[in-house]
Amino acid sequence: MRKLLIIGIGAGNPDHITVQAINALNRVDVFFVVDKGVDKDDLVRLRRDLCARYIKGRSYRTVDIADPARDRASPAYEDGVRAWHAQRLAAYETALMRELGDGECGAFLVWGDPSLYDGTLRIVDQIAARGVVAFDHEVIPGITSVQALAAAHRIALNHIGAPVEITTGRRIAQGLPENVDDIVVMLDGDCAFKGIAETDIDIYWGAYLGTEDEILRSGNLHECGSDIERVRREARARKGWIMDTYLLRRAGAKAG
Amino acid sequence: MRKLLIIGIGAGNPDHITVQAINALNRVDVFFVVDKGVDKDDLVRLRRDLCARYIKGRSYRTVDIADPARDRASPAYEDGVRAWHAQRLAAYETALMRELGDGECGAFLVWGDPSLYDGTLRIVDQIAARGVVAFDHEVIPGITSVQALAAAHRIALNHIGAPVEITTGRRIAQGLPENVDDIVVMLDGDCAFKGIAETDIDIYWGAYLGTEDEILRSGNLHECGSDIERVRREARARKGWIMDTYLLRRAGAKAG
Repeated sequence: MRKLLIIGIGAGNPDHITVQAINALNRVDVFFVVDKGVDKDDLVRLRRDLCARYIKGRSYRTVDIADPARDRASPAYEDGVRAWHAQRLAAYETALMRELGDGECGAFLVWGDPSLYDGTLRIVDQIAARGVVAFDHEVIPGITSVQALAAAHRIALNHIGAPVEITTGRRIAQGLPENVDDIVVMLDGDCAFKGIAETDIDIYWGAYLGTEDEILRSGNLHECGSDIERVRREARARKGWIMDTYLLRRAGAKAG
Repeated sequence: MRKLLIIGIGAGNPDHITVQAINALNRVDVFFVVDKGVDKDDLVRLRRDLCARYIKGRSYRTVDIADPARDRASPAYEDGVRAWHAQRLAAYETALMRELGDGECGAFLVWGDPSLYDGTLRIVDQIAARGVVAFDHEVIPGITSVQALAAAHRIALNHIGAPVEITTGRRIAQGLPENVDDIVVMLDGDCAFKGIAETDIDIYWGAYLGTEDEILRSGNLHECGSDIERVRREARARKGWIMDTYLLRRAGAKAG
């Protein structure tokens, strides 16, 4: 039987890795790496460094899976994502079939946690359902950028007994949710916070969280929103890519 | 200057601890432990074991802080929590003042992550604001029971591009949120899921997540809700306490 591990490796700080993840890394024969293109070389290097740092006295192979180009211009966001996932599915299945031997252990390393805005688990479920390659799989949780954000700002995400919503830039571009005062925004490539008309909102923003390039900003959204936009644009131009996350907090909400 | 670390130690599995948290543990002179009463002896023991396992060649002290009794019968939930926090504040401040020497490093160990449904950061902020004891503090993120739940069930929390709400049993007792199809429920002592009338809901439930006592159940809420209730009641009677978390998922939601 083939074994497949889906390992959360944290948000970018190599020290965010858990003991469970380190133990898992040390069981792996084949790492499957999805090639996201040149502009994310830093991330590929960070992953390679993690393996070099934490895997002891064991050899392993690395197999690259070419990531099909995603049509980000598609007007139907969900359809676009779905088509892209189907192509990825075929690429992953072929790689597993060709490269993972019977009795071997393969792994996908996932930034953050495999349960939050990551497609790996869905692809793995779909491959399992197709039944062409038989394998058993296991999930190892990791520190998310949301947790790294809260830790860096030294804040709780929730007010006492109150809910938190985790959502996307695309969603909040259509309006902030009404019944939740603490809103974590991920996957926002367009500074969707710019479009928010509500005035009494605080933002806690962070980029490259947990890495040496970490940038933090916080304050009233309307006072520091344009500063964040500028800092974000400059950082992205400098490094070629950016990963950022933020919390929007209705300041009028009862403090905890 | 006194230093204070608020360290997330994961949801119960000693292997959920991060390298960053282990490094932090090895800087600590004084661990402040809040005594939650006899029925959570297991948790005190788990924390002690973590220190024994991961702290190398270094001596440290442990200081118990008596946790003021909380009036859970108070009709005003938030007021009750606030009064309880005020009493805790005084107890914590006194302990820091008496037990943490100048130049020493103290720590609070927090189950899960300090940013999610934990009062430690708020208390620390309040003590800092009072200015009676001067200290610098740092937060180290940890794996939450939410992540342990998702990993154990091998599921993503979100549908593609869709939001997730993290909320409490008390909140969902007043009705499920409308605009979110994936709802994580924490702090539910009363099986609030029993009161949900919607029929097309799946539940992914877990107790003692990450520990050797872990219990998992999943399925249609109306088919397995009473089984979960029974399993939960029996486990609680057997161990004297229970910590559980679950995801409610509208089954009609577009699959990811």
